[in-house]
Amino acid sequence: MTDINIIYPADRISLREVGLRDGLQMVKTFPTTQGKIDWIHQEYDAGIRHFELGTFLPKDRYRVFADIQVLIDKVTALPGAYGSGLSPNKIGSQNALSSGISEIHCVMSISEAHNLANLKRTRETTLREIFDLCALRTKMDSPPQIGVGLAMSFGCSLSGSVDPAEVLELAEQCYDAGVDIVSIADTVGYAGPKQVENLAAGMYKIAGNRPFGVHLHDTRGLGLANAAAAIGQGARVLDASLGGLGGCPAAPNATGNIVMEDLVYLCQTGGFETGINLEKLIAVRDVLRREMPDETLYGGIAMAGLPIVEMAGQK
Amino acid sequence: MTDINIIYPADRISLREVGLRDGLQMVKTFPTTQGKIDWIHQEYDAGIRHFELGTFLPKDRYRVFADIQVLIDKVTALPGAYGSGLSPNKIGSQNALSSGISEIHCVMSISEAHNLANLKRTRETTLREIFDLCALRTKMDSPPQIGVGLAMSFGCSLSGSVDPAEVLELAEQCYDAGVDIVSIADTVGYAGPKQVENLAAGMYKIAGNRPFGVHLHDTRGLGLANAAAAIGQGARVLDASLGGLGGCPAAPNATGNIVMEDLVYLCQTGGFETGINLEKLIAVRDVLRREMPDETLYGGIAMAGLPIVEMAGQK
Repeated sequence: MTDINIIYPADRISLREVGLRDGLQMVKTFPTTQGKIDWIHQEYDAGIRHFELGTFLPKDRYRVFADIQVLIDKVTALPGAYGSGLSPNKIGSQNALSSGISEIHCVMSISEAHNLANLKRTRETTLREIFDLCALRTKMDSPPQIGVGLAMSFGCSLSGSVDPAEVLELAEQCYDAGVDIVSIADTVGYAGPKQVENLAAGMYKIAGNRPFGVHLHDTRGLGLANAAAAIGQGARVLDASLGGLGGCPAAPNATGNIVMEDLVYLCQTGGFETGINLEKLIAVRDVLRREMPDETLYGGIAMAGLPIVEMAGQK
Repeated sequence: MTDINIIYPADRISLREVGLRDGLQMVKTFPTTQGKIDWIHQEYDAGIRHFELGTFLPKDRYRVFADIQVLIDKVTALPGAYGSGLSPNKIGSQNALSSGISEIHCVMSISEAHNLANLKRTRETTLREIFDLCALRTKMDSPPQIGVGLAMSFGCSLSGSVDPAEVLELAEQCYDAGVDIVSIADTVGYAGPKQVENLAAGMYKIAGNRPFGVHLHDTRGLGLANAAAAIGQGARVLDASLGGLGGCPAAPNATGNIVMEDLVYLCQTGGFETGINLEKLIAVRDVLRREMPDETLYGGIAMAGLPIVEMAGQK
């Protein structure tokens, strides 16, 4: 198993493209398989190394993710690239384990209401399944990483407030059970920088020498402010999507993920290395426009362009 | 003269509505005078106390600001409300001094190129005019406050990089000359939180017991992240506009101000008092829609709605 700190190096911010999964959950039309491959290849060329490729669901009922195995194989063939896929249940995890994917991503909600709405079972059951998966993969020759996203970590649009202590307790249980990376998710964009700062600081302590992830939505305009707060507390793995695609079918008023392009610019202004070429990244929006002409693409820097560099003597 | 610390109390964040000036510089159609009055009255009812009302320009050539005196009188009649107006030149300042306005706002660019493009004269001339204005108003019985906005404080879309030391030096010269509040302005949205943090920390030192202002544009998606950074360094006066209206005719690719509604939410999540009722504020967007149906209104919280509050036992 590749060490988690090789997948997410400590000397940079790893930005995970979740548009191919989270971003396609609510779109009217989705890209062709070739379109997805172009998206991956062009983003890889721009420097992206982490791709969430879809959800392990029955292919006949969820056509949008039916080509996940093709994408896994494509990403596996790219040097230094890592694919992850969401597993919503036991069958999904079985399929994931035999897919050759680098990371299996499980989701659990902090709120019982959203866990029931999203996964159709209790948090207790979900947690047990995650623990079972951790136990199962230790028996494998080439086991994948296991990641857990804690949805609604900052409040739930179905049931209200969330206790940060409960989030940290669950995160600790996951790490103790062998989970490699736990992410705190502001699924519905409730958080402000202060909440993110506090929870990220707690996660930093719990995670120890392992990374933790931060998954933010820009629902109430504070997505990038929250990303800055998380980075300030040592977060080095952040999810985002090209053009801010995204949303959650089981969360009222959930809108897009934070915009990858603007997040890269945020990192650049802060002096944080991402390995990503921003101009090349912005150009990948053409693939999304071609494949999903009806979807709105968000983001400031793609519209405004990069700042001009210093021109001596003209100031 | 009302003390500057009464106008901008130290125990809260004062959010200045600049949509009536900065926000109307580039719109296709502008509100009727009654529309502007409705905008002011409804925002006042929501808790806004600071309004930038227009620019002192020749009425026959700049119809959009021809009614500035009407608006000054309306704001003056509202208990605890303060109006400011932009003076672009000597004649503007003369008119401003006799208008009864609470604050005269002068602009100077950190970059010579933008100062020339925007004000048609050098920075040296502009600075001398500001100093002259400071001297002039000391002779008045009821002098207005004088504010200076330092445009392009974080870089210029005409001439490139800007030296933060130069911004601070100019700010200090302004305070020394008697300016009551100096604002750092990211006119074209170049800054990231790190740059804002550093410059705001410097301003906090220079300003001493006076406030300093922060004027941000959301051009590259980092406006709210930058606002959070400024507040973290003690900024307590921030400009914003309802729906993110705004732009600068003399700055290529300048887009809207930061969105007032989202900024209020940012303050709320951080526990900072603004005195503003967010639901009432969001409702004022109806005035803008009615008066300027072709303008795009931005902002997350107005679309998504306020987070739901805790509902016991349902988590």
